[in-house]
Amino acid sequence: MDSISMMGGNRRSCCLPAQPTVAILGSGDFSKCLTIRLLRCGFHVVVGSRHPKVAAHSFPHVVDVTHHEDAVSKASIVFLAIRREHYSVLWDLKHLLEGKILVDVSNNKRVNQYPESNAEYLASLLPDSIVVKGFNVISAWAMQQSCPKDASTQVFICSDSVEARQLIVELARQLNFQPVDMGTLSSSRDIENIPIQLFPGWKGPVLAAVALSIFFFAYSFVRDIIHPYVKYKQSDFYKIPIEIVNRTLPTVAITLLALVYLAGQLAAAHQLYYGTKYRHFPHWLEGWLQSRKQLGLLSFFLAAIHVLYSVCLPLRRSERYLLLNTAYQQVHSNMENTWNEEEVWRVEMYVSFGIMSLGLLSLLALTSIPSVHSTLSWREFSFIQSTLGYIALLIATLHGLLFGWKRAFEEEAYRFYLPPSFVVALALPVCVIMGKVLMLLPCVSRKLHQIHRGQESSQYKCKRMEPVGSAAHISPERVTIM
Amino acid sequence: MDSISMMGGNRRSCCLPAQPTVAILGSGDFSKCLTIRLLRCGFHVVVGSRHPKVAAHSFPHVVDVTHHEDAVSKASIVFLAIRREHYSVLWDLKHLLEGKILVDVSNNKRVNQYPESNAEYLASLLPDSIVVKGFNVISAWAMQQSCPKDASTQVFICSDSVEARQLIVELARQLNFQPVDMGTLSSSRDIENIPIQLFPGWKGPVLAAVALSIFFFAYSFVRDIIHPYVKYKQSDFYKIPIEIVNRTLPTVAITLLALVYLAGQLAAAHQLYYGTKYRHFPHWLEGWLQSRKQLGLLSFFLAAIHVLYSVCLPLRRSERYLLLNTAYQQVHSNMENTWNEEEVWRVEMYVSFGIMSLGLLSLLALTSIPSVHSTLSWREFSFIQSTLGYIALLIATLHGLLFGWKRAFEEEAYRFYLPPSFVVALALPVCVIMGKVLMLLPCVSRKLHQIHRGQESSQYKCKRMEPVGSAAHISPERVTIM
Amino acid sequence: MDSISMMGGNRRSCCLPAQPTVAILGSGDFSKCLTIRLLRCGFHVVVGSRHPKVAAHSFPHVVDVTHHEDAVSKASIVFLAIRREHYSVLWDLKHLLEGKILVDVSNNKRVNQYPESNAEYLASLLPDSIVVKGFNVISAWAMQQSCPKDASTQVFICSDSVEARQLIVELARQLNFQPVDMGTLSSSRDIENIPIQLFPGWKGPVLAAVALSIFFFAYSFVRDIIHPYVKYKQSDFYKIPIEIVNRTLPTVAITLLALVYLAGQLAAAHQLYYGTKYRHFPHWLEGWLQSRKQLGLLSFFLAAIHVLYSVCLPLRRSERYLLLNTAYQQVHSNMENTWNEEEVWRVEMYVSFGIMSLGLLSLLALTSIPSVHSTLSWREFSFIQSTLGYIALLIATLHGLLFGWKRAFEEEAYRFYLPPSFVVALALPVCVIMGKVLMLLPCVSRKLHQIHRGQESSQYKCKRMEPVGSAAHISPERVTIM
Repeated sequence: MDSISMMGGNRRSCCLPAQPTVAILGSGDFSKCLTIRLLRCGFHVVVGSRHPKVAAHSFPHVVDVTHHEDAVSKASIVFLAIRREHYSVLWDLKHLLEGKILVDVSNNKRVNQYPESNAEYLASLLPDSIVVKGFNVISAWAMQQSCPKDASTQVFICSDSVEARQLIVELARQLNFQPVDMGTLSSSRDIENIPIQLFPGWKGPVLAAVALSIFFFAYSFVRDIIHPYVKYKQSDFYKIPIEIVNRTLPTVAITLLALVYLAGQLAAAHQLYYGTKYRHFPHWLEGWLQSRKQLGLLSFFLAAIHVLYSVCLPLRRSERYLLLNTAYQQVHSNMENTWNEEEVWRVEMYVSFGIMSLGLLSLLALTSIPSVHSTLSWREFSFIQSTLGYIALLIATLHGLLFGWKRAFEEEAYRFYLPPSFVVALALPVCVIMGKVLMLLPCVSRKLHQIHRGQESSQYKCKRMEPVGSAAHISPERVTIM
Repeated sequence: MDSISMMGGNRRSCCLPAQPTVAILGSGDFSKCLTIRLLRCGFHVVVGSRHPKVAAHSFPHVVDVTHHEDAVSKASIVFLAIRREHYSVLWDLKHLLEGKILVDVSNNKRVNQYPESNAEYLASLLPDSIVVKGFNVISAWAMQQSCPKDASTQVFICSDSVEARQLIVELARQLNFQPVDMGTLSSSRDIENIPIQLFPGWKGPVLAAVALSIFFFAYSFVRDIIHPYVKYKQSDFYKIPIEIVNRTLPTVAITLLALVYLAGQLAAAHQLYYGTKYRHFPHWLEGWLQSRKQLGLLSFFLAAIHVLYSVCLPLRRSERYLLLNTAYQQVHSNMENTWNEEEVWRVEMYVSFGIMSLGLLSLLALTSIPSVHSTLSWREFSFIQSTLGYIALLIATLHGLLFGWKRAFEEEAYRFYLPPSFVVALALPVCVIMGKVLMLLPCVSRKLHQIHRGQESSQYKCKRMEPVGSAAHISPERVTIM
Repeated sequence: MDSISMMGGNRRSCCLPAQPTVAILGSGDFSKCLTIRLLRCGFHVVVGSRHPKVAAHSFPHVVDVTHHEDAVSKASIVFLAIRREHYSVLWDLKHLLEGKILVDVSNNKRVNQYPESNAEYLASLLPDSIVVKGFNVISAWAMQQSCPKDASTQVFICSDSVEARQLIVELARQLNFQPVDMGTLSSSRDIENIPIQLFPGWKGPVLAAVALSIFFFAYSFVRDIIHPYVKYKQSDFYKIPIEIVNRTLPTVAITLLALVYLAGQLAAAHQLYYGTKYRHFPHWLEGWLQSRKQLGLLSFFLAAIHVLYSVCLPLRRSERYLLLNTAYQQVHSNMENTWNEEEVWRVEMYVSFGIMSLGLLSLLALTSIPSVHSTLSWREFSFIQSTLGYIALLIATLHGLLFGWKRAFEEEAYRFYLPPSFVVALALPVCVIMGKVLMLLPCVSRKLHQIHRGQESSQYKCKRMEPVGSAAHISPERVTIM
């Protein structure tokens, strides 16, 4: 070992303390897998079990499986691989655990199952120990893997003791995980919720999409199925699975896209009204702003499915029958040419705008892939999400207007006095586009720019050293994440 | 340098030992690029070469290019940038290398070219040196890059000495790589195979897909081309490039998807039979379980290509001719309306189910992108891969059943006594769906849940401290990765 | 704290120096957010402000907001969160800043706004301080986030002092960022350009794509719109939005794909000519080689849009009218069957090749996603990008040839004496494919292989220790990134 002391003499004593010992209480699967990982990275492991003789069979030979008291006394870092319901056994070990670092890796079964987080409960049980929360997001299975290709390796760590936290952060790094320092123990509730939550950020956007889908589906159903049935006894129910769905999808998609940018505009209006960017947004707007990425991705997903439905239209048998019947009629009415230049141009333009809009949206969606996103600078990301996003919304709106064409002004289009669904769907996008035009007016944009630069309205103004350029990023536009 | 000693006084002496010296034996491209990287990160580099004067021209001036003996004596960490075939030159340096850390970065040309790995061979040659395997997965080109945007930066490291391994892990981190600790030197064979293997995990799934494709292609060819040719002298060979291919693709895709979930069901059956999750699966099942991600991605890829073929169907000239001929016949037979309500409904539903199924599969495929995967908690990933995956399989099966409709029960569909291909293709998916229904029955699911919780059947049962919740993850369902 | 000293006694004193103090000059947004981050990770923070009493209101209570002089004297690491325009205030602090580490986090508004980078300017102002550039790519907003899910966490760091650089690298890591060591301060210009550049690597490829698009669009416009208008007074202007665009897209896509591989072939020719791989490529070729990834992705994007346009063709009203009119004529001319076997086969094959080519290109595009790329070994990546890429180019060329069929040899296809656009578009791909065939000839490929192995032509040849296998990667083929 001469070589190591030559170069890393001090290093071994500090960063590689000669094979430190770690204790694990509990002998379940997580304990086993954590043991394997620790051994592989050069740690000594002592496992505390109620029945050490029985448990020892399922651990590698080099591991010291012993009684709780014995295990705890041998190490300064103790992992608790036991359930919250069994924390009571720690009561007897209280004096032994004094001053030691307890790493709570427990999970619950439901979100907010208990009034306080497991780690906080533990800290209240053992006030003389240093409680660190962490490793709960790693499954026993992922613990066993040496190569982090298939599973997430982020480990969220928090503790009220900065030293203990940094020590466990370093330990996590030595175990080949990516530690994320989450601050004080009050974050432990959030950390415990991570593995049991089901897409928390998606709840609102998905609910919005579902509600809009139901509304627009019902609207189209009444106008396009019920109305002809009531009025002309014409049974068009076959249109439900494809045509009505394909009318619902684009309306929901464009509404969601408009909602993405409406949030930013409301935030800008809030800042203009109060003349400062340091005033908090109302709770609902804050949540909305943070859902923009999800709203945008849902919009793209629905738009893509809409395209799929549209290009499948000619595959339908109904399309074929209608075409053949039209051919029959054309022959029988002896019309050699039914060409309608206006109709031709309208459809060519409307298909063309639809494709362009999807092309742009796909770029926006692509930059939402985390590893693509992280290769972009803020300016590039903002260009794609904000500039290209608004262009996509504009083109999608034109796509909708060309689809509707003059029908908004024809009386027969108002079945049951209901306007065509494209009129309902395009109202919001048109408003959002006009709002953007308003924000681009020199007087408004100059004022917004001043606010984002941190120059507050006169009453707060003070001569001070200017913040650097990048500081202007805390603006609603900054977070225009789609 | 006052400032550094103020804050990091001890730090410099341990984590930043004042410019440690690293020796590199060999003066090829890899040696050059490693030198550049080391210099950039503040190391001293000594290069050992047989012809130091010639080699010195291609190294930066600050590098000490010298004879092997001299280089080795100046550093405690020695990189061996020479081929296995030249390891014999190390024999003369044996006494100088004693106790030093030798980093073997060599690669072979073929998998398992030699009976033992290069690093193990080296360790047997120089038993008094500490051999570390690593950096072989980094190409000379990637070595030179400072910014890891374009190339993989994972470096796999193994050694029998824990201290040496941690030292090289830390060195790799200082060189801006992501070290992965792979344990003892017995992993060196795996590490050496990494850069020369060609998609090792894909071999089985791709072979399965190819075999299934050949079978279903031949099956459709016989039924749809040979049969009409033999029976009615009708030449439908033009159908080969698109129609027959497009009949093969969905059958292979749905079979592969069914195979993904069949593996999990067989694993569950194995556990139910033996009443424990601690018994190893047979070798073939283990391999199958680990191929599920690849099987699923292949299934999605083929399904997407199938959609592409389908939406291209109306572009074909044959489709156009057939349609025009049908129009001609309709006019001549004077049928004003050929509408067939049942056919219309069947096709609308079947197209609709196809789109839904692809939409769900695309979500599954999306979460297989590593950086998307790593943002998901285990519960979210399992929801998408298991729950949504089974729904996708169910909808795809309905899509197939609606495509086939009543033809399974019509005699003329059995050409050459062969059932229609959709009957053959859907047999497996239907079985897998029924298997899932069986597993959802309360009696079965309760027993499975007990097994996954680690409660083994009575003879092993013992009162012991319960493992934490997340420990239940080592179950076949856990690894339901697609 | 007994436990910590047991295991990490030395550790605390080196890696966790008891809560080091960091000073920040400036009290803007960036300063605030950096303060929050530093506090969370256990640092003491002193903020220097011109008006400490006013500024103190917007900082947490534990932060010591004071005068510049006072702040600087309390810490050895000083962050400068002030604009370059205010660097003059540092003049008064010159003696206090002597020997301290100054971290310049400033950004400019435009690329190359000043003759030298901010950090270099700072270093010239304060020659006795140690200037480190870094953290400028992190926005104030991202600074505040503890969890790096949504924003890039790469921090580029450079300094002329290796110790100071490593210290700040370690600091960045403790703040949960991913530090990238960029070497000496001369890199500061590049680092300062990162957040303000807009897709620097994409400029060339996008310009190429736009220029090619304009050329091919104009070419098709003249041949397909102007020619029939001039010659037969036939107004086909309705074809502009879809048909002409859809003729432009594939030609540009295949040209870009051919350009990807042409670059590699020119590089190989350069190496063959000079007989060595150590001679630098000319500047323009170097840039071209580095743009291949972007060229390839643009090619895929345009090809995908081309497919979307193509499958939308049957949705057009014009297609419908033409079909109905053809049906009318077929009935009136009393042709029962218009089937044309050659036409049928041509279109089936051409559609089929198009789909295959897109399928292969999508695999190439997929492996360009950074997190997918990083799971591939060099050999796997090269197989997909080089082997599959050439096959995709070959199939795409066949797709184009089958589209054109015999029209290249028909006189009426040469409108205005211009050859059909597919002839113009396929010239380059055919040359590139023939170039590849040439390179695969044994005599050429053997010589190339020798060059890549580092065996230079005789005059440079010398007996020396061979480089390891992976060293052969610095070849133009190595960087065949798409």
